[in-house]
Amino acid sequence: MKIAILRIGHRPYRDKRITTHCGLVGRAFGADCIIIYGEKDENLINSIVDVTKNWGGNFSARFTDSWKSEIKKWKNEGGTVIHLTMYGMPLPGVMDKIHQLEKIMVIIGSEKVPGEVYRLADYNVAIGNQPHSEVAALAVFLDKLNNEVEFKLYFENAKIRVIPQERGKRVERLN
Amino acid sequence: MKIAILRIGHRPYRDKRITTHCGLVGRAFGADCIIIYGEKDENLINSIVDVTKNWGGNFSARFTDSWKSEIKKWKNEGGTVIHLTMYGMPLPGVMDKIHQLEKIMVIIGSEKVPGEVYRLADYNVAIGNQPHSEVAALAVFLDKLNNEVEFKLYFENAKIRVIPQERGKRVERLN
Repeated sequence: MKIAILRIGHRPYRDKRITTHCGLVGRAFGADCIIIYGEKDENLINSIVDVTKNWGGNFSARFTDSWKSEIKKWKNEGGTVIHLTMYGMPLPGVMDKIHQLEKIMVIIGSEKVPGEVYRLADYNVAIGNQPHSEVAALAVFLDKLNNEVEFKLYFENAKIRVIPQERGKRVERLN
Repeated sequence: MKIAILRIGHRPYRDKRITTHCGLVGRAFGADCIIIYGEKDENLINSIVDVTKNWGGNFSARFTDSWKSEIKKWKNEGGTVIHLTMYGMPLPGVMDKIHQLEKIMVIIGSEKVPGEVYRLADYNVAIGNQPHSEVAALAVFLDKLNNEVEFKLYFENAKIRVIPQERGKRVERLN
């Protein structure tokens, strides 16, 4: 399955850590890339890319000048667009349909998402209809979409890897 | 089940939004309260309390001067302490044991968690052993602990409630 994340509405001062978390969650939960629309912020890209360099895999991050053209391009190429929003339909009711898809763009917004996003998305999906967090919504969505892949993924070309411990930290450095 | 979240290491400038998201995830995914250790920040408490006022339920938020005494008190009262960390044991291997518990404190740290936390916790648990996000770890943990309660919870005394829509937003104001 091919999975891209489209983050709409990044402001460096306010959203730096939230958007970074969205990227790292995408990588750790089996997505391929994050595309960010908002104020350009090279530090943000670097902090995600650095994790990929050290911890492995092929996850990538870039900015875009037009969220709309990213959505249209994705749909033109046969992809499906899923917008995560607390106003949407609860995930359990649409999960069966979503599980059959092969190419998914997951949109996560910050506070204000343009109304057009709701119309362009194939599905507007809620991880519960309460206010909480786009980081949480993304993680729970990918966990269910990818059948708990975060516990199974192997990352190629890693320089470091955790050896799970009951107490404390153990990290293995690889060549 | 009684569930408290203990957030260790809050710095207002850097962590305001992340800690707020942790609180809102706690509320939306069935926890009872968040206890925060770090620099005092009344705005943070207010932003969580305001969500409870508007969206209902009894979730509460407060600061503590000592994370250690919170952990010890919880354990003295028969509670179990689970520290979410990427260095811990993968959740699937300990989920059966955790499902039998009735009183759980979930610890989430920021970047630097004191080594003593790993020793005081009954379980150090990983939601995958890759770097990602404490917000994501908390959400996925509570989703699995509470059997997808985020799709089922009813919040008493709400002033507003979402009516899920396939397109757009619909909010109902209650008396």
